[in-house]
Amino acid sequence: MEISVFGTGMVGRALAGRLARLGHDVVVGTRNVEQTLARTEPDAKRTPAYTQWQQANPEVRLLSFPDAAAHGEVVFNAVAGLQSLTVLQAAGVGNLAGKVLVDLVVPLDYSHGRPPRLAFANEDSLGEQIQHAFPDARVIKTLNTMHVNVMIDPARVPGRHNVFLAGEDARAKEIVKNLLGEFGWPAEVMVDLGGIKAARTTEMYAPLLFALMDVLGTSDVNISVVRGPE
Amino acid sequence: MEISVFGTGMVGRALAGRLARLGHDVVVGTRNVEQTLARTEPDAKRTPAYTQWQQANPEVRLLSFPDAAAHGEVVFNAVAGLQSLTVLQAAGVGNLAGKVLVDLVVPLDYSHGRPPRLAFANEDSLGEQIQHAFPDARVIKTLNTMHVNVMIDPARVPGRHNVFLAGEDARAKEIVKNLLGEFGWPAEVMVDLGGIKAARTTEMYAPLLFALMDVLGTSDVNISVVRGPE
Repeated sequence: MEISVFGTGMVGRALAGRLARLGHDVVVGTRNVEQTLARTEPDAKRTPAYTQWQQANPEVRLLSFPDAAAHGEVVFNAVAGLQSLTVLQAAGVGNLAGKVLVDLVVPLDYSHGRPPRLAFANEDSLGEQIQHAFPDARVIKTLNTMHVNVMIDPARVPGRHNVFLAGEDARAKEIVKNLLGEFGWPAEVMVDLGGIKAARTTEMYAPLLFALMDVLGTSDVNISVVRGPE
Repeated sequence: MEISVFGTGMVGRALAGRLARLGHDVVVGTRNVEQTLARTEPDAKRTPAYTQWQQANPEVRLLSFPDAAAHGEVVFNAVAGLQSLTVLQAAGVGNLAGKVLVDLVVPLDYSHGRPPRLAFANEDSLGEQIQHAFPDARVIKTLNTMHVNVMIDPARVPGRHNVFLAGEDARAKEIVKNLLGEFGWPAEVMVDLGGIKAARTTEMYAPLLFALMDVLGTSDVNISVVRGPE
């Protein structure tokens, strides 16, 4: 499947590498291909230069956001929280029309220090904002309730634990579920929360996730939903 | 133990009844004892009149908020979300000084319809507001991540699932953990999230809880935190 990953950071690289190893035709989108490839030093987050990762993953091409958007049947948004809408606008509304747009981003705001707050919550969500700004894209919010290591390899956390989906388009949801299955998520742990408005509920879970990671001292953390008998 | 429960609604009644059956000396606090006892019809939420419950639980006395606050070593706040601070002010700062104040309330705002939003989130929480307004009370935020039926009888949800605690006072936390143990929560599922600021994280989980209840069609729902190996 042709898949585009927006974002050259650790999350985008982990996703793109995993998808490529699964046999997909993967491109990574960036603002300026030449600038991204020209960097040789780690960035402010100590992430090594993209070119190092590129050399280890030569089958993944780096394209501009518009070219990357045009490539994929499925586009993963893995851009740092608040840049998402700007980046998607740069990709072009037309290039994203009809695409399955997987939004796994939590709109984190580090301006008040750590742990980060959400930039907005409660009466809005990033998933909804993206769907509203790109009405012809088929936005699915998912994978935003765990660390990227667990997103692409759920077996890092033992036993049964869940992944949530929210979005308006049933066919897009099926396509995303298939990809989640390829990552290793069993179908029975995928919880469909309904329309894109439910992105609020999973984005607002992020502070509890961060607290749990902190208390448990690991990012290999997830939750299992347990219910009483019928 | 002398325990006070603030709130005459379904949550307060369920807690008070359970605590009384466990052998505690329980009182329920209300704004106006005479008015509460004078009602004979169900309220707007179709909750039967308090007097009916009182007749079935004669060992639980109904007192004014100040008298109830003076009674308990431990005070449970089970007042509908946004009334909490008003009610606690009515109980009196002095009457709450030194008390273990268990806050299990989610600050729900139904003014935008259902599902409710949080009245505030992200940069504030009800738990923090209460601790700030009553600096001499020992506020513990807990039990706010599940339906009251599960709070007082966790075996309604099978297997291992968690309850969270946040608060500044270590001794108060131990007292609350003992009460949770009496409700049926095993010690190993109690997750201490640290200081009262962590109340934000569990209050913000509420929208996901409501979505899960809706999708699963039951209020017997909780989450189990799963982590990877060391």
